[in-house]
Amino acid sequence: MSADSNSNYQTLVKHFQSISHFEHLSALGDWDQATMMPNGGGEARGAAMAELAKHIHSLKTAPMLAGTIAQAQEQVLTAEQQANLREINYQFLQANAVPGDLVEAKTKAAYHCEQAWREQRKNNDWQGFKPNLEQLMDLVKEEAAIRAEILNVSPYDALLDKFEPGMTTASIDSIFTQVKSWLPELIQQVQHKQASEPKYTIPPASAESQALLGREVMQILGFDFNHGRLDISNHPFCGGVASDVRLTTRYDEADFTSGLMGIVHETGHAKYEQGLPIAWRGQPAGLARSMALHESQSLFCEMQVGRGSGFLKLIQPHLKGLLGCDLSHEKLNNIYTRVTPGHIRVDADEVTYPCHILLRFEAEKALVSGELAVADLPDFWSSQMQSLLGINTDGDYKNGCMQDIHWAVGELGYFPSYTLGAMYAAQFKQAMESQIGSVETLINNGRLGDVMHWLQTHVWSQGSLLEIDELMRQATGETLNPAHFKRHLENRYL
Amino acid sequence: MSADSNSNYQTLVKHFQSISHFEHLSALGDWDQATMMPNGGGEARGAAMAELAKHIHSLKTAPMLAGTIAQAQEQVLTAEQQANLREINYQFLQANAVPGDLVEAKTKAAYHCEQAWREQRKNNDWQGFKPNLEQLMDLVKEEAAIRAEILNVSPYDALLDKFEPGMTTASIDSIFTQVKSWLPELIQQVQHKQASEPKYTIPPASAESQALLGREVMQILGFDFNHGRLDISNHPFCGGVASDVRLTTRYDEADFTSGLMGIVHETGHAKYEQGLPIAWRGQPAGLARSMALHESQSLFCEMQVGRGSGFLKLIQPHLKGLLGCDLSHEKLNNIYTRVTPGHIRVDADEVTYPCHILLRFEAEKALVSGELAVADLPDFWSSQMQSLLGINTDGDYKNGCMQDIHWAVGELGYFPSYTLGAMYAAQFKQAMESQIGSVETLINNGRLGDVMHWLQTHVWSQGSLLEIDELMRQATGETLNPAHFKRHLENRYL
Repeated sequence: MSADSNSNYQTLVKHFQSISHFEHLSALGDWDQATMMPNGGGEARGAAMAELAKHIHSLKTAPMLAGTIAQAQEQVLTAEQQANLREINYQFLQANAVPGDLVEAKTKAAYHCEQAWREQRKNNDWQGFKPNLEQLMDLVKEEAAIRAEILNVSPYDALLDKFEPGMTTASIDSIFTQVKSWLPELIQQVQHKQASEPKYTIPPASAESQALLGREVMQILGFDFNHGRLDISNHPFCGGVASDVRLTTRYDEADFTSGLMGIVHETGHAKYEQGLPIAWRGQPAGLARSMALHESQSLFCEMQVGRGSGFLKLIQPHLKGLLGCDLSHEKLNNIYTRVTPGHIRVDADEVTYPCHILLRFEAEKALVSGELAVADLPDFWSSQMQSLLGINTDGDYKNGCMQDIHWAVGELGYFPSYTLGAMYAAQFKQAMESQIGSVETLINNGRLGDVMHWLQTHVWSQGSLLEIDELMRQATGETLNPAHFKRHLENRYL
Repeated sequence: MSADSNSNYQTLVKHFQSISHFEHLSALGDWDQATMMPNGGGEARGAAMAELAKHIHSLKTAPMLAGTIAQAQEQVLTAEQQANLREINYQFLQANAVPGDLVEAKTKAAYHCEQAWREQRKNNDWQGFKPNLEQLMDLVKEEAAIRAEILNVSPYDALLDKFEPGMTTASIDSIFTQVKSWLPELIQQVQHKQASEPKYTIPPASAESQALLGREVMQILGFDFNHGRLDISNHPFCGGVASDVRLTTRYDEADFTSGLMGIVHETGHAKYEQGLPIAWRGQPAGLARSMALHESQSLFCEMQVGRGSGFLKLIQPHLKGLLGCDLSHEKLNNIYTRVTPGHIRVDADEVTYPCHILLRFEAEKALVSGELAVADLPDFWSSQMQSLLGINTDGDYKNGCMQDIHWAVGELGYFPSYTLGAMYAAQFKQAMESQIGSVETLINNGRLGDVMHWLQTHVWSQGSLLEIDELMRQATGETLNPAHFKRHLENRYL
């Protein structure tokens, strides 16, 4: 390897650009599988996706990388190039931790499990789902054990690290223990306060009109339809690539409010993706910072903006025009801030939501450590739901441990990101308001764009150029501080 | 390379299985780009598809292949394995003919050209399209020249060979010269005969109701919706993979007849794909035999079955139910067998259709040889349309040389397959009828399934296990004989 002083770094840039092209195809395959693909296409797709995953893995573990990275680290690079090199190295280490055969086996098992889950969930078929999940969980544990040994952390920490670089079980335990100390009482206080409030009837709305409304609301939030789409899937998600972001949702014709806020949530993810630094497209430094930060953007959209009265006032005429919905923005605000313990995480209100995460965090830790067998998951679920939210889920698997896609595709370690994201979102709002004024006032004055611009400047355009603690310090003056989340809930709900 | 006697062949099988997985992703990328992708996603998609094309090319030209194929040819193999090895070798030779950089450059240029063409075609923007086509045509000519030298044939022959293994310009010239000797007179005779027939008004129909009708008609033809979909694109096509066939069409709300027959046509392609031998999925022997044979199946569906009175009688109640269309099957038959020279190939009737191909065949030969410059294409087009069909296309590029997607994606050498396909279709019908009786009678007796079963047995299930001449001999008792096509037109139209 001779050549000019910049050659090692440039070799890495080219190599990771190439990887990003295959990841583009992987994102497309995932999106299509969830939105468009007929069931009969699943087997061949699963095989193709497994082959692709193996290929991407082989590119990320190419023998030349270790040496090239080491030599690039000796080069004179700009601060941004150094950040990109740090992220390249992180991806290399993550990929190198797991053998290609295991990647392929897990991809195949995940496709098989998720394909079957789609029907099994509808049919409340735990007995059908269980063996698939058991098989997949064995592979997840194998992966966790291998990663743990290499990173010298616990197996569950090794999974967390895939989504939240540097985050540990101990940190989350500490944060979540605090939450447990005040949240149950807060839920009771809010429920008591809301008990006397009137309940409004939600008018029915066809899926077609909800989809039209969804697109108008996305436009209000500044979603760029030249670089993305909205479709339907079993489980709402934001996929695709930064230049072509694919949102999905699902519509309940008896209650449009859930699908609508689902779209607002996913649009928050999409805005992050569409706002990532264009100069770094295709490079690791150009990717979103972490999953919790991704969730912070969707939750900022959904919770900080979407459930506020300013935004609801803004979209109310669209609800009237497209759905014929006569509810005033005050009534909408009441509906969207009503706290009611329920079965479904994605339908949960802002206050009870963390309980769904506390449960899953405990379950995942125990599943990965082996303390909890897959067969015992429904009982564990029911007892936790009982103690956290007073809900019995015995026998109701579809609204219990089969409700989420995450485990059906073998993604453990992701769930904590949701509540960490809610905390980051509250912290961003506090910082934003201290800098540019109240979000509600801005929206009421037709300046939702200023809110988005702040996020664009401080979060989206940063990609992964900064590590998360530094990003938070530059944006908000401090690292993650869960107190903002508690204060936000108290301000809004008490 | 030691190991058991079967190892070289098995190595090839595994290698081509892997290639088929990447081709699955390529088919998905193409379909999505034509049906779902927003314009702004084009650049990144183009780069990803070019990377993928390059990777597939590198797999098909892997250094180990030459030796492994040579050694496998010495092995004791079944007749079917030998056929697969022959097709593996054909793919290897085809891929090896062209350098990877050229494949990548052409893929990129084709994506760029086709993306822009979508809008340019709508706007009749020849000046915008011309430089893109010129750039792409240079790459096509470069490819043709390289292939020609290696295969020791003319450049255009080298392109034909990609779609019709073994077919030559000389053979097609000879067949098309015959067609030219009788077709113009036949068109005049038919027009004279039809001049006194009444013309029926086609009722308007919404795109939504046409899509519902299309799905019902596909079901009647036995399309398996567990292994495929119907969507909308600028240019109708049949894509995807055998286990997940993706049809597209476009709807004209003022005239549903064109979109409907377009769906019938593409369903013919789809039936071929869905009927390919399952035991050979993912192997070259399991692919469709040639593009002309593919077109023979779509044209069998559209022309031999679709425009016959038995089929129209079968679907008439669906037209009434979904579109409120009161036209009797006799009137539909009249509409679907009306001969009217027109601008658009895909809307052409069965009799004038070959003229559209004769024109394109002459244009392609001249473009590839350099006798015709891209800049002169519109004039060439207009003069040929004038002499073949009496139509002036001066200044009407969107309905002239910009109407098809083929050149916009750099696919030259494909067009002759349409008319060769019509000839194969007529020959299949003649053979089928001599074996199981009249297609019209079968359909009238509710036995459309028997017609499909014959095709399944003699064509679809054969994949590429036989070479085309042998397939035709086994199915029809002779190799391609254009006389059947002439007889079919005379029987139906005179």
